[in-house]
Amino acid sequence: MRQAVMYAPGDVRVEQRDRPAVARPTDAVIRVAAACVCGSDLWPYRGIDQIAEPRLMGHEYVGVVEEVGAEVRDIKPGQFVVGSFFTSDNTCEICQAGYQSRCPDLRPVVDESGGAQAEFLRVPWADGTLVATPGQPDADLIPSLLAASDVLGTGWFGAVAAEAGPGKTVAVVGDGAVGLLGVLAAKRLGAQRIIAMSRHADRQKLALEFGATDIVTERGDEGISKIKDLTDGYGAHSTIEAVGTQESMLQAIRSTRPGGHVGYVGVAHGVTLPGMELFLSGVHLHGGPAPVRRFLPELIDLILKREIDPGRVFDLTLPLDEAAEGYRAMDERRSIKTLLRP
Amino acid sequence: MRQAVMYAPGDVRVEQRDRPAVARPTDAVIRVAAACVCGSDLWPYRGIDQIAEPRLMGHEYVGVVEEVGAEVRDIKPGQFVVGSFFTSDNTCEICQAGYQSRCPDLRPVVDESGGAQAEFLRVPWADGTLVATPGQPDADLIPSLLAASDVLGTGWFGAVAAEAGPGKTVAVVGDGAVGLLGVLAAKRLGAQRIIAMSRHADRQKLALEFGATDIVTERGDEGISKIKDLTDGYGAHSTIEAVGTQESMLQAIRSTRPGGHVGYVGVAHGVTLPGMELFLSGVHLHGGPAPVRRFLPELIDLILKREIDPGRVFDLTLPLDEAAEGYRAMDERRSIKTLLRP
Repeated sequence: MRQAVMYAPGDVRVEQRDRPAVARPTDAVIRVAAACVCGSDLWPYRGIDQIAEPRLMGHEYVGVVEEVGAEVRDIKPGQFVVGSFFTSDNTCEICQAGYQSRCPDLRPVVDESGGAQAEFLRVPWADGTLVATPGQPDADLIPSLLAASDVLGTGWFGAVAAEAGPGKTVAVVGDGAVGLLGVLAAKRLGAQRIIAMSRHADRQKLALEFGATDIVTERGDEGISKIKDLTDGYGAHSTIEAVGTQESMLQAIRSTRPGGHVGYVGVAHGVTLPGMELFLSGVHLHGGPAPVRRFLPELIDLILKREIDPGRVFDLTLPLDEAAEGYRAMDERRSIKTLLRP
Repeated sequence: MRQAVMYAPGDVRVEQRDRPAVARPTDAVIRVAAACVCGSDLWPYRGIDQIAEPRLMGHEYVGVVEEVGAEVRDIKPGQFVVGSFFTSDNTCEICQAGYQSRCPDLRPVVDESGGAQAEFLRVPWADGTLVATPGQPDADLIPSLLAASDVLGTGWFGAVAAEAGPGKTVAVVGDGAVGLLGVLAAKRLGAQRIIAMSRHADRQKLALEFGATDIVTERGDEGISKIKDLTDGYGAHSTIEAVGTQESMLQAIRSTRPGGHVGYVGVAHGVTLPGMELFLSGVHLHGGPAPVRRFLPELIDLILKREIDPGRVFDLTLPLDEAAEGYRAMDERRSIKTLLRP
């Protein structure tokens, strides 16, 4: 089968690999219907994360179950499934509390057997990781279901962690797919005012369509001042951080009022938080790898009812064979998010 | 009047100063009935915080109102009052949300006009900062009411920030007065299991009397392992951090399960939190200077009903004139907390 592999920064190739098979009795193997390039895939692509050896790429996926292990009870061959990027048993105390992305039995989807930017994918803990749709979904819903696999689930978690809700003013730091879907989540959760921080016209437009009420183009101290100006000097009640740099984390914390909530979902790179500033900020800080599995049933339901349309973040669709161009387009900001069809 | 003043590390003197008067129309002046030495006073005493010029000491107090400004409506001369260490208007959005310690109109009680380790104290924003007891309290309740002014309010906030409650296992890092009263708060809030981390027999004893169910004497990685052993490998649901060092913050974060809550109330000294570790921890982090004013009405009520006895943290009582000995006793860990009688 074909699989996207990153050899070095800027060097992504699609090559032939063995098709994965069930290895543990709790595995499933799926035929990937759609996968995509993640903002976090750009960290190694840009040389910020090191690549020691060729890396199998892709951790966002939807597809049809081909085969399941002997201990898989709920997931069945032929079902259309959406999965999350970390696997989880979904039975332990951590999973039951809604933190499936920190399951002690966690195994990454991208492991020895493959990544999701491929024709087939082996998924550990199939019952605890995958959610089946009722019947085969309409083809036009596939991008939205794929978004649920990571970027929607992550933006949603950011909004939940930031306690976005009725009466709240929510600021969103980051205008990538996760930030934009954080806007959508905040809107859906009932936020009164949603301030998207973005300097790109195409992303501003989508943010407004997803429910943003204000756009702030400034960054850093100027951006923080703007947020304060829009909130009687207090700062936002809730801030979603969807970048993961030192600058974006401090921007998020400083844009939030004392007692407010920062939901941070950008993968931290080179971030160190100054203890005294955090202490005096009085904010709540919560985030990390999103427990997408917690939200999947609800998100799939909203998508199938066509109440949300998160698939709009995909502004470029390419065949899997052109994965390299998908990475380039996102790296050069020509594409918000690129969908790959095996 | 007499006032404790710190001139340099290890150098505390009680000297004559002018008695403070109402300076702003929202001020009150109180005759201090009892004050005390705070764990945070030991930072400059030990030379960890710098002292540029002689510092008026004391920010914990109870007393009787002598005089009020023209705009003070609720607080009246003759009332017995308990106040918090930061002042607050208690009318703005931040105060109304329960974060009076971050009021934009905040003024420290220790300012140009004096500190609480004195005979008299000027309190800005009297209506928003002070809470009067119904009538004069019994003399034996004064230590507990004084504790409410800071250490109980701070330990309580730590427990609330850590979301201690029914069914929860709560770990407490730090066995000073705040940590011990964090134990009391967790018990009162209904926690199922309370693990006090302490290496001192007298403090362990008080922790057990306040409601601790387990004592862990180990620190650092060994202490974290013990907490994990006691919680099926998952970590505590809630951890109260009541020290403020890099070691204690990391011990608190690492002792907490993913999705759990760390309430940190130790004043941060030299703390920098590693972003990636925090991201992967999946914990909620909340803390800062405790909004004592939020909790005062409830805490005063519990004390007057004799349902809690937080004054037991005071194991040494001295006349104000012997303040220097009070500092020495706490510095040398001969006293958990020292009460000063003007």
